[in-house]
Amino acid sequence: MSPISVLLVAGTHGNEVNAPWLFDQWSRNPDLIDSHDLELKKVIGNPAALSEGKRYIHSDLNRSFRKELLNSSNSSVQEVLRAKELVRLFGPNGKHSCKFAIDLHSTTSSMGSSIVIYGRRSVDLAVASLIQYRLGLPVYLHEGDPNQQGFLVENWPCGLVIEIGPVPQGVLKASIIEKTRLALSASLDCLAKLSCGEARFPNQLVLHRHIQSLDLPRDSDGQPIAVLHPEIQGRDWQPIEHGSPLFIKANGEIIRSNFKEKLVPVFINEAAYLEKKIALSLTKREVLAFDQNWAVELNSLLFS
Amino acid sequence: MSPISVLLVAGTHGNEVNAPWLFDQWSRNPDLIDSHDLELKKVIGNPAALSEGKRYIHSDLNRSFRKELLNSSNSSVQEVLRAKELVRLFGPNGKHSCKFAIDLHSTTSSMGSSIVIYGRRSVDLAVASLIQYRLGLPVYLHEGDPNQQGFLVENWPCGLVIEIGPVPQGVLKASIIEKTRLALSASLDCLAKLSCGEARFPNQLVLHRHIQSLDLPRDSDGQPIAVLHPEIQGRDWQPIEHGSPLFIKANGEIIRSNFKEKLVPVFINEAAYLEKKIALSLTKREVLAFDQNWAVELNSLLFS
Repeated sequence: MSPISVLLVAGTHGNEVNAPWLFDQWSRNPDLIDSHDLELKKVIGNPAALSEGKRYIHSDLNRSFRKELLNSSNSSVQEVLRAKELVRLFGPNGKHSCKFAIDLHSTTSSMGSSIVIYGRRSVDLAVASLIQYRLGLPVYLHEGDPNQQGFLVENWPCGLVIEIGPVPQGVLKASIIEKTRLALSASLDCLAKLSCGEARFPNQLVLHRHIQSLDLPRDSDGQPIAVLHPEIQGRDWQPIEHGSPLFIKANGEIIRSNFKEKLVPVFINEAAYLEKKIALSLTKREVLAFDQNWAVELNSLLFS
Repeated sequence: MSPISVLLVAGTHGNEVNAPWLFDQWSRNPDLIDSHDLELKKVIGNPAALSEGKRYIHSDLNRSFRKELLNSSNSSVQEVLRAKELVRLFGPNGKHSCKFAIDLHSTTSSMGSSIVIYGRRSVDLAVASLIQYRLGLPVYLHEGDPNQQGFLVENWPCGLVIEIGPVPQGVLKASIIEKTRLALSASLDCLAKLSCGEARFPNQLVLHRHIQSLDLPRDSDGQPIAVLHPEIQGRDWQPIEHGSPLFIKANGEIIRSNFKEKLVPVFINEAAYLEKKIALSLTKREVLAFDQNWAVELNSLLFS
């Protein structure tokens, strides 16, 4: 069997600098992360944005993988061109085709280490199960949000995001680098075990399913009239109680939760989402029994 | 006597969004901060950068007030033009001349609330003494650094920076807004007391005098080969012990302090300083006896 080909992406957002630095150090010192017998392709997602220390040049690369953009013939948006290039080079039919994609991100939110998957592809659920079983990381299932589409990993047969926080944009932080290294290393180890038939799947997968995102309260001109309340700041993954504070105005007036069900916030006060009008996203915790078909499909992808 | 004229600046760096939001809310609700009988001019330092969510468009506005730049006749750098405009409008000989300038900043470093002054102008030392006596804030004296020049407040007869952190760039954070409001409010109260002769000066001023800045260790290509050690991360204002860890390489190798004297770090891991090659700045704590001449000069400026 040929080795499993894995695309590893850092710097999809150019101001998320920790994973690119880790890649750089890893290139100098191959022992830093065990590659096992995997065929790894390391790439900087958006090198132009990275060199300028910005999230993107023209538009968010990690929203540029929508089919209509990839199929467009006349776009001059730098990130759309880069998305096409990445698919051309490393996509399933690419020159250096990869079956898996792992996209490394950081956030200003206090998310700790987590996994993000997009939709319910069996193979993603299988890999997420393996990594969660190994490291206990929470898994954010992003689905059903028409405003946020076109993520990189969706264009590979199997793929997920490793998301680490909190760290300000543009800041190298040792603890974030180490968390990134650990999560990546464990993920590669899981894939390596898959390839030699030693992977052990758990009985269940705990998901945090995306429900909706909340914007800051705004006036008729679109200006924010309140900010996140200190009591919710930093409480990613902690269920919001009915009536607990969400937002606070400059005069101290508090806007409280009126959710009827127990919702769990993520991406609380992510800097890059201010422009996307997302103050936080709400999820619902769900426990899925592990479906053996997920493993079957993953093995089928692996050995195809 | 005419009321004291004070220039208040927010958003000198366009990705420091908390003070601009506070200004906006204050405009809607004048009771938010007591203006006393001061003649306040509120201005957004770099509105173009603020609307783009970037620190600056062409160059750092808060390094653009060097005499040779202000006197240049042919610069097309947006921030140099803006610096000239601010001086023309609000400078001591400006259309709406101000004697004092307070420039509101935020940092990704864990600085808490602090005051920054530039050089040892008696009037600045006098005002810093008043505010420190009132709020207990640490004062960072920036002087003798040829690489960092041209700060906004240096172009007003008296002026200081209020620096609040930690907060990522581009993030609105309630606790930072409230700290900014408190520090600004106390500063205005001090100035108001001065104008009615009720100011009480302390016996001493505790300064943290700038000694030098340290860059990350780099290779011959200029790439960082280590990052700040977790043990120093977030420890602004806490003296560095001899032999304590400063930097860590990806392989775990530690680079330790070999300082011969007790130095106090500030601006540890400020995101904007990565490009300035400043990983942290080192200061020395000094206690100055309050000099009555400072108060005399301040009163003289006030009543001139």
